Amino acid sequence: MHNRSLVSITDYNQADYLEVLDRAAGFEKNPTQNLLSDKLVATLFFEPSTRTRLSFETAVQRLGGRVIGFADAAYTSVSKGETLKDTIKMVSNYADLIIIRHPLEGSVRYASEIASVPVINAGDGWHAHPTQALLDMMTIRQKLGKLEGLKVAIIGDIFHSRVARSNAWGMKTMGMDVVLCGPPTLLPQHTESLGVPVTDNVDEALEGADVVMLLRLQMERQSSATFPSIREYRDRYGVDLDRLSKLKENVVIMHPGPVNRGVELASNVADSECSVILDQVTNGVAVRMAVLYLLGGGE
Amino acid sequence: MHNRSLVSITDYNQADYLEVLDRAAGFEKNPTQNLLSDKLVATLFFEPSTRTRLSFETAVQRLGGRVIGFADAAYTSVSKGETLKDTIKMVSNYADLIIIRHPLEGSVRYASEIASVPVINAGDGWHAHPTQALLDMMTIRQKLGKLEGLKVAIIGDIFHSRVARSNAWGMKTMGMDVVLCGPPTLLPQHTESLGVPVTDNVDEALEGADVVMLLRLQMERQSSATFPSIREYRDRYGVDLDRLSKLKENVVIMHPGPVNRGVELASNVADSECSVILDQVTNGVAVRMAVLYLLGGGE
Amino acid sequence: MHNRSLVSITDYNQADYLEVLDRAAGFEKNPTQNLLSDKLVATLFFEPSTRTRLSFETAVQRLGGRVIGFADAAYTSVSKGETLKDTIKMVSNYADLIIIRHPLEGSVRYASEIASVPVINAGDGWHAHPTQALLDMMTIRQKLGKLEGLKVAIIGDIFHSRVARSNAWGMKTMGMDVVLCGPPTLLPQHTESLGVPVTDNVDEALEGADVVMLLRLQMERQSSATFPSIREYRDRYGVDLDRLSKLKENVVIMHPGPVNRGVELASNVADSECSVILDQVTNGVAVRMAVLYLLGGGE
Repeated sequence: MHNRSLVSITDYNQADYLEVLDRAAGFEKNPTQNLLSDKLVATLFFEPSTRTRLSFETAVQRLGGRVIGFADAAYTSVSKGETLKDTIKMVSNYADLIIIRHPLEGSVRYASEIASVPVINAGDGWHAHPTQALLDMMTIRQKLGKLEGLKVAIIGDIFHSRVARSNAWGMKTMGMDVVLCGPPTLLPQHTESLGVPVTDNVDEALEGADVVMLLRLQMERQSSATFPSIREYRDRYGVDLDRLSKLKENVVIMHPGPVNRGVELASNVADSECSVILDQVTNGVAVRMAVLYLLGGGE
Repeated sequence: MHNRSLVSITDYNQADYLEVLDRAAGFEKNPTQNLLSDKLVATLFFEPSTRTRLSFETAVQRLGGRVIGFADAAYTSVSKGETLKDTIKMVSNYADLIIIRHPLEGSVRYASEIASVPVINAGDGWHAHPTQALLDMMTIRQKLGKLEGLKVAIIGDIFHSRVARSNAWGMKTMGMDVVLCGPPTLLPQHTESLGVPVTDNVDEALEGADVVMLLRLQMERQSSATFPSIREYRDRYGVDLDRLSKLKENVVIMHPGPVNRGVELASNVADSECSVILDQVTNGVAVRMAVLYLLGGGE
Repeated sequence: MHNRSLVSITDYNQADYLEVLDRAAGFEKNPTQNLLSDKLVATLFFEPSTRTRLSFETAVQRLGGRVIGFADAAYTSVSKGETLKDTIKMVSNYADLIIIRHPLEGSVRYASEIASVPVINAGDGWHAHPTQALLDMMTIRQKLGKLEGLKVAIIGDIFHSRVARSNAWGMKTMGMDVVLCGPPTLLPQHTESLGVPVTDNVDEALEGADVVMLLRLQMERQSSATFPSIREYRDRYGVDLDRLSKLKENVVIMHPGPVNRGVELASNVADSECSVILDQVTNGVAVRMAVLYLLGGGE
């Protein structure tokens, strides 16, 4: 992976994923190592995201690296009409690695072609969020001891979800049995391109699932009304204690955060023993340390 | 103090205050020490404040620590509806210490109960601002050689002031004679809970004062008109050279900043030899270094 | 230069410029040196500018220094009515060096008189941008081997350009032949104060030029219509391949960025072999490292 970019989980194979997961497990045991000292990492958040930005900036600094960047494009030369190309060429001259979140699909791929240093995709539109998929796989492996053969149901706004897209590919590659589920209005049209079954029947999706991943209902991304009401969404697609009781005994409940408590996930389920949401947060730092280390020049 | 939080000055006793003040005096003599290297400190400013944020970030970095965080909640997952609980649980996974400013009273106490790492209150609504009280005590002790027995008049918008609340408690605990003074409309209703005398008579408050602390008239916090005009406020409660001339010869003039020059404090008084406003700024860094060091694992 | 401020290029002489340029060339060969470790540098951007802020923050961190600051005055105590004087006095207590961008001419000079530490001007209104002039001179010297005797045409909105003002002085001091050119409505009234010829005739300006520097058409600074249309501006003052073909064979094309591609500079010219825009970006970091090092206490 040395000196390559990480734009999409589809650019890498099973062996690569395992290298990241193993390396991340190592960092979790021994979190502070000066493997990136003297390295400057740029965090370019053209779309704000505290959770992901803080996770990456923690990872950089735990490795002894330093950070430059911005948290919102409103205060950048982009707002003065600068092209993405020129911004990336500029930052390539400043930083040893570039982390980008951008609202447009494909923008990070384009940036990686322009940049003279490795680029890490921290989310581009509805397209991809590869480190999220890696941290989710790490969390499942940590909790259930393996990935292959497990059934994962990913439930929510599949249409707008880069998390669903990245996880569907990554988990399938690892031999998992993935099903995507959401209201018909929040499913993509050409579902065959996702490579995994897609359904609007939540009971079918949950049947026999070892892992249930709820997606955040992204109110800010809904351009028009796509379902009758939040209450109806909660009743039909949310997971509460009642629905939890019908799942496998050791089911693992996941959520990429931030959780809309009481919408896609009841508060007491989010805080239950089944929930690994905080493990996802912890593993996010470890996985990002591993990616930074491997792309940034580690052996 | 090791591994505890600092939410309110009322959580600690005289011996604790003195430990902070002594430690801070040591840091002032020898400001750069790598006592927090390998530590990551989060600065979560849900309400913007350059002065306090830069003071804390200076303190962290002077100790060799590193910073993650945000300067305004507008660009955070909070704006996407994330609960404070989830934000704090997330950041507990990233940082070794958390510094919080928040517009709501009680929010930092709640955060300290959620967090798995020590939390430092950098101001919560009208409630508390403990490091401000500590730096004010340090400044008075430095200037006048002691605290016990001195009379302090705190003048201004007492109702909305966390600085007044924290100082009233802290200074009384140190044996000082504190009086709070402001226009009747800017005094709290149940003044007995503050534990010190409260008056709207400025001459009475200033009588024999060794220290006069002016509070910033926080125009942005006045939800409705609480006094006839800025000019009337200045004439009745502001300190200018004329009023200064009637005070004790060695009176110490303090202000937590930012000063509204010409309102609560005349410009020539703010810059006079009586003023210790810049000492407060300097001592702010030293006190915050001491608090970070003591809570973060120092002996 | 030790312990002085850098407010305007006019404060320094030819020998100083050469010291910066030589030192910068050294940093370009050997970019990471711990010459500013233990130093805290404040970046106070009262007006946002990603390019310049990231360049300075890269320079500080490449030297092992640390950064505090803000990227926009909207989130500062300035927005609460604090005077620049009080902000600067505060930050002088925190940082070892202060970098300021401010929308008002003269504000950085004033700040340098208030501050107890060296101040570096990162752009004040239409007045000055001294590190830009230094990096431009470095880039020309690197490309053409010398400065003296070369003809430079600076084309665009001269009236609002601190880049034009700083370069006109700096380049003239180095024995270069500078001509400023722009539409009559974007030329200053008292052009004699600039010390170099000013014209609205672009062909005259370009005649025999070794270096052509296009200025960004700052749409956001135009308070009222100063020329008929963007298209007319492009046709009369922009440089495209056709105009390029009429220039000297080895002409050097410069732009301080961000470029309005297709306005002052055609996209294919910006990306052509004549263009040194990315060298300017690279040299910007090196020149700022040199300035930080020399002002901050280097030999």
